[in-house]
Amino acid sequence: MHAPPPLFGHRIAATDGAARAGVLATAHGPVETPVFMPVGTAGTVKAMTADAVRATGARLVLGNTYHLMLRPGAEQVARFGGLHRFMDWPGPILTDSGGFQVMSLAKLRKLDAGGVTFQSHLDGATHRLTPARAIEIQHLLDATITMALDECTPFPASKAEASASMELSMRWAALSRETFVPRPGYALFGIVQGSVYPALRAASAAALTRLGFDGYAVGGLAIGEGQATTFAVLDATVPHLPADRPRYLMGVGTPSDLIGAVARGIDMFDCVMPTRAGRTGRAYTSAGVFNLRNARFATDDRPLDPHCACPACTRHPRGYLHHLFKADEMLGPMLLTWHNLTYYQDLMRGLRAAIVEGRFAAHAAAVRAGWTGQPDAEPEEA
Amino acid sequence: MHAPPPLFGHRIAATDGAARAGVLATAHGPVETPVFMPVGTAGTVKAMTADAVRATGARLVLGNTYHLMLRPGAEQVARFGGLHRFMDWPGPILTDSGGFQVMSLAKLRKLDAGGVTFQSHLDGATHRLTPARAIEIQHLLDATITMALDECTPFPASKAEASASMELSMRWAALSRETFVPRPGYALFGIVQGSVYPALRAASAAALTRLGFDGYAVGGLAIGEGQATTFAVLDATVPHLPADRPRYLMGVGTPSDLIGAVARGIDMFDCVMPTRAGRTGRAYTSAGVFNLRNARFATDDRPLDPHCACPACTRHPRGYLHHLFKADEMLGPMLLTWHNLTYYQDLMRGLRAAIVEGRFAAHAAAVRAGWTGQPDAEPEEA
Repeated sequence: MHAPPPLFGHRIAATDGAARAGVLATAHGPVETPVFMPVGTAGTVKAMTADAVRATGARLVLGNTYHLMLRPGAEQVARFGGLHRFMDWPGPILTDSGGFQVMSLAKLRKLDAGGVTFQSHLDGATHRLTPARAIEIQHLLDATITMALDECTPFPASKAEASASMELSMRWAALSRETFVPRPGYALFGIVQGSVYPALRAASAAALTRLGFDGYAVGGLAIGEGQATTFAVLDATVPHLPADRPRYLMGVGTPSDLIGAVARGIDMFDCVMPTRAGRTGRAYTSAGVFNLRNARFATDDRPLDPHCACPACTRHPRGYLHHLFKADEMLGPMLLTWHNLTYYQDLMRGLRAAIVEGRFAAHAAAVRAGWTGQPDAEPEEA
Repeated sequence: MHAPPPLFGHRIAATDGAARAGVLATAHGPVETPVFMPVGTAGTVKAMTADAVRATGARLVLGNTYHLMLRPGAEQVARFGGLHRFMDWPGPILTDSGGFQVMSLAKLRKLDAGGVTFQSHLDGATHRLTPARAIEIQHLLDATITMALDECTPFPASKAEASASMELSMRWAALSRETFVPRPGYALFGIVQGSVYPALRAASAAALTRLGFDGYAVGGLAIGEGQATTFAVLDATVPHLPADRPRYLMGVGTPSDLIGAVARGIDMFDCVMPTRAGRTGRAYTSAGVFNLRNARFATDDRPLDPHCACPACTRHPRGYLHHLFKADEMLGPMLLTWHNLTYYQDLMRGLRAAIVEGRFAAHAAAVRAGWTGQPDAEPEEA
């Protein structure tokens, strides 16, 4: 007898202030929260084998609907048995709805009440994404966690613009909800919009809660408003979300962003920052951000981060990593991506342990203190 | 008590016709022969972590003196504790002398009786490589196997040109021999030149044997003369080399080249072919050469090579590899390099087992038969 597949859910194991430590139950295995999801845009976390991603401690990865619908196509991925098999990731996968990338990458995009029509940035072919099609694509990809289609309200937006955009996203959320086919251990998340306006955020959270989702994302942040505003919007939004469902802050962020958002009750994150930075030579470490291209690392015999167990830190001196970037060797991006993802996973694991042990604030302060006053460190956001 | 470091040597375990199965003893561990060395030009086998290189079965890798002397510099590598530690390869490393790359990559190169003066292709700085400096650089890199400086005689060359070039290489071999500092388990190899002229090859082999080297390389082949000529030159050269020393065919080659050269008594090989081909989407398999960029692989759900245990073959369908190359994802080159190196290592291991079991000819014929008549296969050399 096989055990029945688990129902999707988020069990809170401990809280410390607003911060939560939990476990997501999914059809593809459990995930401890707070969790950072590496971004596997086109069916691969860039510069990493699936085994390497697992070795960083990651248990949940993100795939991009926009990229996969265009190439190789959702139906094609389905014929290969879904994204899990295609990319060798049997664990849980969250897919975005495609809406954000359509608006940032596609050509000649035209938004209407029913969806968005656009031309592929690859070949110019015309495509249309509607709430129903976004859900269908994610079903074909076999996403463990499906995101409702929304419009990411641009920043800045007037209150009237933000309200209209949010209302559209709420109608699309309802349509997404109708189309989604529930399966045990699979989930559909709604996305709160409302820009920087607390009343709109509260209204959006209320609208989604009325519809009822398996989890709630906060969208439309980290798009230029600055960290203080991001945190203020979280303060105005999170209390309106159901405590028994996971909360996902989309597209965030720096290590500092993650700490601040976990402190405000966020459970899930994704961001290209650690992978993109790794490809350009920037390393997130317990002593701050380093740019390995800098000449001062050429003769540096120390490990990149003595507190890190990744191959970049345990096998090579900093001078080797510098050499790889100077010589344009693929191993540079490979090793630094591996390191940055390991740092992000270690950071989340450390935050979780601190929540469980009731010392979150002290731990967060100690982590932040490690970043400051280091002569080599660079601004985190640069 | 520690055991004393092993003396460098090549113990022949079995022969089958002219083919030999042996074990190289080195200061950095044993290596079964015949052996294929992945090329780690600038201190990294391109697109591979050192762990991944080990996972392919490789035990001996090659580093390029020319690249490393220019960047990061031999003295800099020495300050990091040598190339083994720098690139995380505690096993044996063979370095070339730099001569071949100077003539193919450097700008404004000027050859004289004492060496070659050239401008770096990186920054235009003037450098000089002499037999003594080539040996010193390889000492600084801590190469397990050092190669004497030679001139790779261009093809085609008249007999007079080839003779003069070979004589220069023999003088440089003597100077290299004088400079090399013997250490237990370390080796210096001489390089036979003489173009396609049997008498020159025999004279070169005799000159080197009189000087006495730990191993003998055959250089100046696989530079446009064609496989039949390569093999004919081997037939005219190998009998003049000491049977108790390892024989190394430099810069070779395709799987077919390797089989033919092993049949003629060659023990060691290096070539960029499997790594370079992997980066462009070409896969060496038991069923021949495939170009994964080809559209017919887009929907192919089969493993790349069902006889291969590498991650590309065991974790993903061919259609995924095709997708990675179409999407310009780094994981495509990473996985296909891993596969090609695994194929080359498996090929050599299979040849060795067949030699030990006295069935080399039948095994070689069976391997070759696997490549032919496959509808998907492409010309091996393309």
